[in-house]
Amino acid sequence: MKNDKLSLSNKDIVLQTAAALFLTKGYLMTSMDEIVALSKVSKTNIYYHYKSKEELLLAIIDQLVSHYEQRITRVLAQDMSIPAKLERLFQILTEDHEQDDCVGGCPFLTLYTQTSNSSLEARAKIRTFFDKQLQVVEKLLEEGIAKKELSQDLPVRQTAALIVTSIEGALFLTKVSDNPMLVQNLFQSLTSVLK
Amino acid sequence: MKNDKLSLSNKDIVLQTAAALFLTKGYLMTSMDEIVALSKVSKTNIYYHYKSKEELLLAIIDQLVSHYEQRITRVLAQDMSIPAKLERLFQILTEDHEQDDCVGGCPFLTLYTQTSNSSLEARAKIRTFFDKQLQVVEKLLEEGIAKKELSQDLPVRQTAALIVTSIEGALFLTKVSDNPMLVQNLFQSLTSVLK
Repeated sequence: MKNDKLSLSNKDIVLQTAAALFLTKGYLMTSMDEIVALSKVSKTNIYYHYKSKEELLLAIIDQLVSHYEQRITRVLAQDMSIPAKLERLFQILTEDHEQDDCVGGCPFLTLYTQTSNSSLEARAKIRTFFDKQLQVVEKLLEEGIAKKELSQDLPVRQTAALIVTSIEGALFLTKVSDNPMLVQNLFQSLTSVLK
Repeated sequence: MKNDKLSLSNKDIVLQTAAALFLTKGYLMTSMDEIVALSKVSKTNIYYHYKSKEELLLAIIDQLVSHYEQRITRVLAQDMSIPAKLERLFQILTEDHEQDDCVGGCPFLTLYTQTSNSSLEARAKIRTFFDKQLQVVEKLLEEGIAKKELSQDLPVRQTAALIVTSIEGALFLTKVSDNPMLVQNLFQSLTSVLK
């Protein structure tokens, strides 16, 4: 039991260390030796949990996906109006402090651009995450229109594309321009589109 | 004279080779040796033009910036309505074939996420490009409102943020999802926002 706990904790430390390095320094620029040095977990122990840097990458993506999906699922289950749910979704996607230090503003974008050539599996996982995000937004828009909480002539697919692409672009461009007003301006603009 | 021409042409070949490698394989993953091998220009000749990989990167960014800025400037100078100019701008930014093969869907996004830690100058150039893009869109919106070609109660900053972030996000997400409908859906959505 004690060993199990210890090993779980080491596994978590390795994952956190690797995630921090991949997101701020870059996947390609990070070596397993660096993860060993920074996590203070032995190489043998790390390789016991993760056979390669790619396995670590995939575990990090899984963790990020579940982090966001859990938060999104909670919002969907709440007893709120559709505009309120869309606002919460916007906040979840734009106000996560995990994004602050990450090279491309969005952890998925950062990992995708650095690894899409080296890991088809990473690419597929990130694609699934965004495809689902688009579906969630489409479903919320359909519900909101049916409940008359959103403008009746809102085209669903088009508006979902607008919401998902603009949020993703805003994460990247806020990082590039160091301008937090971009997200606020975008939020106001999206709010008026939905009315 | 002959030597001058030859050297100019070599310089261009190096730049094109390096750009293709940086955008499809990645800046960090590309070595100067690879650029030598693929361009068939001698190392001495390459280093005569570009002292380092970073110098090549900065020249590539400058070339990309001027490629887009020239096209944007031409559109701005044309005798068209503001909605028509905005449509052309959208096309310029989304339909460029240079983007097709590039890892992150947008060349600037691809280069930024791979180099922002290693080149402050690259970062500053990319920031300037997007800051200007936002200003161009704001100016077009102001003109369109003044000329009564766009909705009179369009908030300028907010709508410009929506346009610029959604186009950038669409470039990345089209690459991720391999779904060309995203750009079409976005275009329809933006068009109805402006009316």
